[in-house]
Amino acid sequence: MSSFGSIELRELLLSRIKDVADYPKAGVVFKDITPLLADAEAFGALTDALVDLCVRHRVTKVVGLEARGFILGAPVAVRANVGFVPVRKAGKLPGATLGQAYELEYGTAEIEIHADALTPGDRVLVIDDVLATGGTAEASLQLVRRAGGEVAGLAVLLELGFLNGRERLAAELKDAPLEALIRI
Amino acid sequence: MSSFGSIELRELLLSRIKDVADYPKAGVVFKDITPLLADAEAFGALTDALVDLCVRHRVTKVVGLEARGFILGAPVAVRANVGFVPVRKAGKLPGATLGQAYELEYGTAEIEIHADALTPGDRVLVIDDVLATGGTAEASLQLVRRAGGEVAGLAVLLELGFLNGRERLAAELKDAPLEALIRI
Repeated sequence: MSSFGSIELRELLLSRIKDVADYPKAGVVFKDITPLLADAEAFGALTDALVDLCVRHRVTKVVGLEARGFILGAPVAVRANVGFVPVRKAGKLPGATLGQAYELEYGTAEIEIHADALTPGDRVLVIDDVLATGGTAEASLQLVRRAGGEVAGLAVLLELGFLNGRERLAAELKDAPLEALIRI
Repeated sequence: MSSFGSIELRELLLSRIKDVADYPKAGVVFKDITPLLADAEAFGALTDALVDLCVRHRVTKVVGLEARGFILGAPVAVRANVGFVPVRKAGKLPGATLGQAYELEYGTAEIEIHADALTPGDRVLVIDDVLATGGTAEASLQLVRRAGGEVAGLAVLLELGFLNGRERLAAELKDAPLEALIRI
């Protein structure tokens, strides 16, 4: 485990994440980050911690995963002074794309990246809000590599450890770190 | 018309927006902002110009419209040190919401805001990438007011003037400014 963020930061952020019972379906407790986003101090501190990761891992591009990964990733790219690249659900990017399907509980989904979004030598930090089972994250790492980028790491605000996403991602991450600010 | 941004900034940003023919359907020329997002200098300069608007209009919350408005709005909120509030497509926000339907070319769509996202006295800048016919923008302004916020303004990177969104929004904007960095 890496030492991403301080204990004080984790406590601040955790206090701004709200449990919502039975969303999106009965029996699931959803982690709502909108109170954190609405708190300028907390959102700014989270951004700073992610920017530190960019510096530590010599990142040249931030990839944000639609849609909450856009909200967390874009401020990091701007503050770290590196480019931002969106990974979107299939059919949302207008240019030539690379697509990667992944399995859901029922059926499959697909995400895409613009085929020309990365250049050789780009070191990419993939950012999302929550790591659950790791399906979207795994597909995004595959897309980054297929688009010619090097995976510098995957960073999430919240890792739901009981869903074993970290284990699923191990093969695709290779030597790149999975940086989770809060693990529950 | 306001004097949002310099001529040099407009030229830089316009040079990073790519025309994509026949997307999302035949006959439409889509304005692709992903080259701008991938350019740290351009994305940073756009953010700075939007932060200046926040200062000028004494903004206390930035509302970003799903999904590209998330990418543009979140860095502005972080850099301006104000809270960020997402307006999402119906069914995506986990808490109690207010919804607003609006007309599309065929049928209707609905967007939502968390009912407790704003507090009285909040001055809100709504941010999106493109103003087209203004349906989403109009609904978002209505949501901001219904949630108890004051509309400080609507800011877009690109206004497609030939679609007359500005005229459609006039009644809902009232005295609040529509700030478009580039108008075509």
